Amino acid sequence: MIQDAIRALRNGQVILLYDYDNREAETDLVIAAEFTTPKSVYQLRRDAGGLMCVAIDPVVCSNLGIPYIVDVLRYAGNSGNGFKSIESIYEKVGDIPYDSKSSFSLWVNHRKTYTGITDVDRSLTINKLAEVTHQAMNGNHVNFGAEFRSPGHVPLLRAAPNLLKDRKGQTELSIVLARAAGVTPAMVMCEMLDGETGKALSKKDAMEYARKHGLVFVEGKDVEELFNSSMN
Amino acid sequence: MIQDAIRALRNGQVILLYDYDNREAETDLVIAAEFTTPKSVYQLRRDAGGLMCVAIDPVVCSNLGIPYIVDVLRYAGNSGNGFKSIESIYEKVGDIPYDSKSSFSLWVNHRKTYTGITDVDRSLTINKLAEVTHQAMNGNHVNFGAEFRSPGHVPLLRAAPNLLKDRKGQTELSIVLARAAGVTPAMVMCEMLDGETGKALSKKDAMEYARKHGLVFVEGKDVEELFNSSMN
Repeated sequence: MIQDAIRALRNGQVILLYDYDNREAETDLVIAAEFTTPKSVYQLRRDAGGLMCVAIDPVVCSNLGIPYIVDVLRYAGNSGNGFKSIESIYEKVGDIPYDSKSSFSLWVNHRKTYTGITDVDRSLTINKLAEVTHQAMNGNHVNFGAEFRSPGHVPLLRAAPNLLKDRKGQTELSIVLARAAGVTPAMVMCEMLDGETGKALSKKDAMEYARKHGLVFVEGKDVEELFNSSMN
Repeated sequence: MIQDAIRALRNGQVILLYDYDNREAETDLVIAAEFTTPKSVYQLRRDAGGLMCVAIDPVVCSNLGIPYIVDVLRYAGNSGNGFKSIESIYEKVGDIPYDSKSSFSLWVNHRKTYTGITDVDRSLTINKLAEVTHQAMNGNHVNFGAEFRSPGHVPLLRAAPNLLKDRKGQTELSIVLARAAGVTPAMVMCEMLDGETGKALSKKDAMEYARKHGLVFVEGKDVEELFNSSMN
């Protein structure tokens, strides 16, 4: 099954990635940023319905200086320089119920987008994120600000430095899969929601969607097994 | 027509709000935050497909210390304190093609949400934003950080201080309508996209959606007329 997921990602296909029953218990539609098209953006926003984010490899984040947004908010909020209101609102450890911290970074648009939100614009931003990630992975100098501006309509997620050793969210799970698949580790993700219940789409219904569309469904525990075996 | 829009908002209905042919040329689905339910969130994400944001009255933003996010990014980026990468990426005047600046503020979740992204969670965050806006409008003390944390899944938009005199985006247009309708000026908006073309839904197709669903369609120029007449 995990090999099917790896093969699918390498072929540019969408997969379904469930975390854990005792975490978010949520399935994301996931596709590698380098293979994303306007039609993929449409599929993710229409069939998943959550927030379309791009998870980026921790090595790249570190090279490019892509921060956790909470670090920026903490810095401004504690500065005493007119952002006092942020002091009480920025996320502290213990604030989120399913993990120790969220992985949100900056929200960006590629500089060649117009509004930034259309399927064409989001796809462009996402493809360009894959490009700079690829450049940074190869040790090339990247001027991130020459390509993107912030705020924008595509939230970046910064994967934890030691991936699943630090955090077990879809952010880290998707980067483990990307590395295994040998695709550029910039991964688009969107949470699958259920309009009937108003909650996350159930695991059962997510598996049914996968079956119907001929897509691979994979779970956190399987990705973790792969991760642990690759560490030995 | 503008009176129909005002009446619809007062009755808790969704309306369609188009800006201008020579601006974004985009239609948003709009509903007052106080009337938003999980089903409204579903309708907006499913039928509109863009980024679901909440525009907030400038007086309230000022009272609560809700900043433009670009001011936070500029402060951190220029500080020389480890956020140097942000210096080149934060939005400068002239960066966005359709206006002088974007209106993005913080991204928040209400503290009682779980993941923050489900229809139930986003609806809760949105309703609570209406509550604090209402409190702040009435001059009551509000502890914003006791209710919300950031980052989150609901982007706040800060309306410009003098509304349409300063900026003519859906952010400002929706607040002008809210004030005219006498609803709490915290307005949920989501851009209508076209999955076939990958672009914004055309004005013609947006009007067709309005007709089909019995909803009011209103344009920036009509809201502007209302705004100008109320200033005299």
